[in-house]
Amino acid sequence: MAAHFNRRIEKLTSLMVDSGISGAIISPGTNLFYLTGLSPSATLERLFALLISPDGGVTLIAPKLYENELRGCWIENIVIWSDSENPYAILSDLIRKSFGRSGKIAIDDNMQAAHILRAYESLRAYDLTPLGPLISKLRIVKDDEEIKLMREAAKIADKVIESVISEKLVGRKEKEIARFIENEIVDLGADKFSFDAIVASGPNGANPHHTPTERRISEGDLLILDFGAKYKGYCSDITRTFSIGKPSERGLEVYNIVKEAQEEAFQAVREGVIAKEIDAVARKIIASKGYGERFTHRTGHGLGLDIHEEPYIAQNSDVELRNGMTFTIEPGIYLEGEFGIRIEDDVAVINGRGERLTKTSRELIIL
Amino acid sequence: MAAHFNRRIEKLTSLMVDSGISGAIISPGTNLFYLTGLSPSATLERLFALLISPDGGVTLIAPKLYENELRGCWIENIVIWSDSENPYAILSDLIRKSFGRSGKIAIDDNMQAAHILRAYESLRAYDLTPLGPLISKLRIVKDDEEIKLMREAAKIADKVIESVISEKLVGRKEKEIARFIENEIVDLGADKFSFDAIVASGPNGANPHHTPTERRISEGDLLILDFGAKYKGYCSDITRTFSIGKPSERGLEVYNIVKEAQEEAFQAVREGVIAKEIDAVARKIIASKGYGERFTHRTGHGLGLDIHEEPYIAQNSDVELRNGMTFTIEPGIYLEGEFGIRIEDDVAVINGRGERLTKTSRELIIL
Repeated sequence: MAAHFNRRIEKLTSLMVDSGISGAIISPGTNLFYLTGLSPSATLERLFALLISPDGGVTLIAPKLYENELRGCWIENIVIWSDSENPYAILSDLIRKSFGRSGKIAIDDNMQAAHILRAYESLRAYDLTPLGPLISKLRIVKDDEEIKLMREAAKIADKVIESVISEKLVGRKEKEIARFIENEIVDLGADKFSFDAIVASGPNGANPHHTPTERRISEGDLLILDFGAKYKGYCSDITRTFSIGKPSERGLEVYNIVKEAQEEAFQAVREGVIAKEIDAVARKIIASKGYGERFTHRTGHGLGLDIHEEPYIAQNSDVELRNGMTFTIEPGIYLEGEFGIRIEDDVAVINGRGERLTKTSRELIIL
Repeated sequence: MAAHFNRRIEKLTSLMVDSGISGAIISPGTNLFYLTGLSPSATLERLFALLISPDGGVTLIAPKLYENELRGCWIENIVIWSDSENPYAILSDLIRKSFGRSGKIAIDDNMQAAHILRAYESLRAYDLTPLGPLISKLRIVKDDEEIKLMREAAKIADKVIESVISEKLVGRKEKEIARFIENEIVDLGADKFSFDAIVASGPNGANPHHTPTERRISEGDLLILDFGAKYKGYCSDITRTFSIGKPSERGLEVYNIVKEAQEEAFQAVREGVIAKEIDAVARKIIASKGYGERFTHRTGHGLGLDIHEEPYIAQNSDVELRNGMTFTIEPGIYLEGEFGIRIEDDVAVINGRGERLTKTSRELIIL
C-alpha cells in the first residue's frame, strides 16, 4: 500500500517542483484519501493535516484523538497534538522547517478557512495557492482500478432506479422517496449515498437543486430523481425524469429536447475533444428549440472520489478529454411554476470513446 | 423575519466595530442561517457569500443557479453571477467597495479554503481573522425560541434510545443499527440526523470516533451508541453505553466511574462557573480511579446550530457559563483491545443551574 501511495505522492511532488511550489498542505477529505488512504472518521474542527515537501517528505499532524486510529499507518512522521497544546504553533513550526521561510504553498481546497486563518500570521509570509488545479492533474485521469469502482457505483445507481420504478409513488412524499432511495443505495452495498437524494415533483422540478419536501407525488407530475452511490470512495450520480401518468404535450416536447441534447452530447465525447465543445453540443440543441435561457447550469461535472471535480463540462472549460476521464452529462430545462426535466449519465472515456457507466434507459418512463 | 435577522446583524456589526473589523464574509452554513435564515440547498464549490459592513450594509453574492431560490429573499443587495463570469473578481470588487482597501476582515470559519485562495491576491492586502470568536459571542447564548428547538431535538434523541432498546441487537451489524438509528431520527420528525451515528461494539468502543462496521453485536459486548437529531436547524447529541448480557466486573467498574464523572460534572454546572472547572470535575474523578490517561478527549462541547461550537468544556476553556448556554457533558474511558464507555447528555444553563435536555436514564442498561 505504501508503494501505491508513494507513487501518487511522487507524481504530485514532481508537479510541485514544475510549478515552483515549496510545500503542500492537505486536509482530511478526498485528497488525503487519494494520497494516503487515510479517511479520519470525524475530524470536525480539530487540525488534522498532511504536509508534503517537494523532496517527497511527508509529515502528518493529527489530534491525540486519532492516535489509536493511526497506529500502523504507513506514514513515518506523525506529530500528535493534545487538547492542551496549540496546534497552529506546531503547524507553523513544521511549515517553516519543511517548506522554508518563504515561497509558494499549495493548500487543499477543502481545508476549512478556520485553519488557514488561525495560522495566518505564519502563512501570510507565503504565496498561497489552491492545491486543486495541481492535484486534479493526477485525479482527473482514473486508472483501471478506479474505473472498476466507478462502474460498481454506477451499477448500484441503476439498480436503485429499478427499485424505485417498482414502487407505488403516487401519494407519497418527496422526502419519503428520498429516504427510500438513500436506504436502497446502502442496502445494495454502497458505503453511503454520494449526496442527499433530490426528489423534485411537479413544479418543484423547476429548481435544479431542490430539497425534498412534504409535497406528495401526484398524477400528472413530472418527477426528477437525482442521486448517487459512493462505492469504496468512488461516486456515481444519476438523474432520470419520470412521468406520473400521461405527460402533457409540452412535457413530452421538452423531455425529447433534453433527451436529444443528452444523447448528442454523449455521442460527441472523444479523446482530444475539449470539454466546452461537449457543453456546446447540448446547449446548442436546447437553444435551437427556444429553451436556451431555461438550461441554467453546465452540462456536466467530473466525478470520482468527489461528486464534483474536474473535468467540468461547461462553457468555459478548456480541458482536453483523455482516456480515463469520468464525468456526468446532464442537460436540463427548468420552467418555473411548471416543471423541470433533467437526464444525467456518468460517462467515462475508454479507448478514445465515451462509455456510459450508468445504463438505465433514457426513454420517458410513465409510472 | 427581516427585523429578526437585522437585530442579529446589528449585534454582530456592533461587535465588529468594537474589534476594529472593517468587514465580515459569511459562507453557507450555520452562520449564514443564523444571520439571514438562508440555507442554500447545495452550494458545493460555487462561491456564495454574504458581506457585512460595520455600518450594517449587507450584500449577498450568489451563483445564478440560486436565482429562483433567492426570489423574495429579505436581503436587498443581491449580486448574481453566471458560470461564464469570474466570481472572485466580483468578490474582490465588492470587498474593496464595502470594506475599504485595507484593515481587518473576519472570515467565516466554515468557508472552504478554495474561496479564500482564489481571492487571495485581493485578500492578502487585509488582516484576515476568523469570524468564529466574534459570532460565537452571539450564538453561544441561546434565546428561548432556540432552547425550545433544542429541547425538541433532545426529545427525539431520547425517543430513539427507547426504539433501540426495544430492538433485538445481538447478531446485527453495527452499520445496520446505525442506519436504523438514522431512520428513526428522521421518522420522529427531525430535519436530519446531526451527524453520522456512531455504533461501536466490544473492542471498537475503544475508538471514540469509531465508524460503524460489519461487526456483529455479540453477547458480552459493551455497546456505545452516539447520535443526534437536527430539529429546525438545532442539534442534539446523546451517548449511552449498553451491556449486551451481563457485564464483566471490569466493565461494570469502569461504567460506574464514567457515570459518576458525568453526574458530578453535571452537578457542577452553575451560572458563573468557568467551563474548564466542569472539565476538571470529570477529569479528576476519572484520574483518581487510575484511568486519567484513558479519558482521551474533552468533557464536552457546546451545541446549537452546529454540533460542535462554543462553549467547549475543556481543560483550556475559560468561558464563563451563562444562562442560555447549551453544551454536552460526555466523559469516557477507552481501553484499547477491550472496550470503551461514554455517557453523554445535552445540558442547558437555565435559571442559573444546569438542566439536562436529554432525559434518558444513565443507569447501565443490560440488553
